[in-house]
Amino acid sequence: MQRYFMLKAISEVDEQAIAIDGEIFHHMSRVMRMKVEQQAYLVFDEEVVVKAEVTEILDDHLLMKVVEHIHQSTELPVDVTLFCGLPKGDKLELITQKSTELGAHHIVGFPSKTSIVKWNDKKRLQKQERLEKIAREAAEQSHRSISPDVLLLADINEMYNMLAHYDHVLVAFEEAAKEGEHAQLVQTFKEIQPGEKIAFIFGPEGGITPKEITQFESRGAKVCALGPRILRTETAPFYALSALSYHLELQGQ
Amino acid sequence: MQRYFMLKAISEVDEQAIAIDGEIFHHMSRVMRMKVEQQAYLVFDEEVVVKAEVTEILDDHLLMKVVEHIHQSTELPVDVTLFCGLPKGDKLELITQKSTELGAHHIVGFPSKTSIVKWNDKKRLQKQERLEKIAREAAEQSHRSISPDVLLLADINEMYNMLAHYDHVLVAFEEAAKEGEHAQLVQTFKEIQPGEKIAFIFGPEGGITPKEITQFESRGAKVCALGPRILRTETAPFYALSALSYHLELQGQ
Repeated sequence: MQRYFMLKAISEVDEQAIAIDGEIFHHMSRVMRMKVEQQAYLVFDEEVVVKAEVTEILDDHLLMKVVEHIHQSTELPVDVTLFCGLPKGDKLELITQKSTELGAHHIVGFPSKTSIVKWNDKKRLQKQERLEKIAREAAEQSHRSISPDVLLLADINEMYNMLAHYDHVLVAFEEAAKEGEHAQLVQTFKEIQPGEKIAFIFGPEGGITPKEITQFESRGAKVCALGPRILRTETAPFYALSALSYHLELQGQ
Repeated sequence: MQRYFMLKAISEVDEQAIAIDGEIFHHMSRVMRMKVEQQAYLVFDEEVVVKAEVTEILDDHLLMKVVEHIHQSTELPVDVTLFCGLPKGDKLELITQKSTELGAHHIVGFPSKTSIVKWNDKKRLQKQERLEKIAREAAEQSHRSISPDVLLLADINEMYNMLAHYDHVLVAFEEAAKEGEHAQLVQTFKEIQPGEKIAFIFGPEGGITPKEITQFESRGAKVCALGPRILRTETAPFYALSALSYHLELQGQ
């Protein structure tokens, strides 16, 4: 069943007559060709998910009523931010889509020393908007109750300042994989408590520089390997998020 | 350092004067512009990996000598086959590349009832060849010592017959995720012994039909969920392989 992010609180609507207009109305009436009595999931702020039914279709909007509040959560029990060194081409699109399916809450792109892309402010904000749209579509499709936000930084120093706000910061480092490091990821995962904030840092294709690693470490980051194989910049986040889900959502239960 | 799959046994070469010609010679001399004394990893059959050095460059081939045998393994301790319901577009390319990085050994495409693509034999074999090339490049880049083979089946019945050859068969099923199933993946992973053969089955976009599930189950397959979120057909293998690596390669040590 289709899922829509309402981008407002449920307290802002009348649960017996929710008016749907704009883009969502267009999608429901034109793309999905929904009729009266057909249902969809509506996702409101604060992870409120309801099953709602169409009661009336008008020219430029339609009305739905709530038939059920859904309480099963599809969200990771921790708040996860990915910091990705800006990669080439459309890899950030792939990272955003897949990481949303795999449970990330925030995606931050940062210009690493080895990043090749250069965007002016206008281009950067356009790209950010496009990525947020990709995240919202992936969140709807994967039955998330939170649509991840995307932030593209113009300067790595902004990122250094952000790192203080996390309970755990992990940096995926290729050299750690080559040296056979295999304890840090498990050790950190074992320390994680529900509700904590976790940050993962991934370099672009050219990798993270030793200077950047030092900056991260001085802010509490731990270097880890994601298994013994060398993963591409866009593949590493998939491993980290899948392992986190396996550890917290499947194994803990 | 660059890595090349030699596609022969090390016993077939003289370790003090390995002659390199053809495609690999072209890549070393033209693309990488390697000179005498420069090094690369050469990967031979049976997971034999050596570091070798260029000793002489000639017109149509070059010579290398082995300087070190590498004993650190980058392979999962079990043999993993992915069975993927043939998806649309170039998703099989993405699955092949990423699953190779994440450690798969064999990738098998099968026509599920809901698969939309239809290939004649010629097209199917061309696609298979192309996917094997993508796998080899990803295996080189991710420091594998095995390059996965790719097989595209013309008929799902061939797949049913293959399932008898595995110690464990898991089917990722969207309905299991929706129903909150979360025990089977961990339970199977805990039963796995080194050297065993594992198969994962993933449906195409339209999902696996109940009839297909019954066929899989009658051959010993267990239905499992990959966390509570609904993953796209190309994302599910990333989760399964990452979780397997986390369980066997990081957590067990």
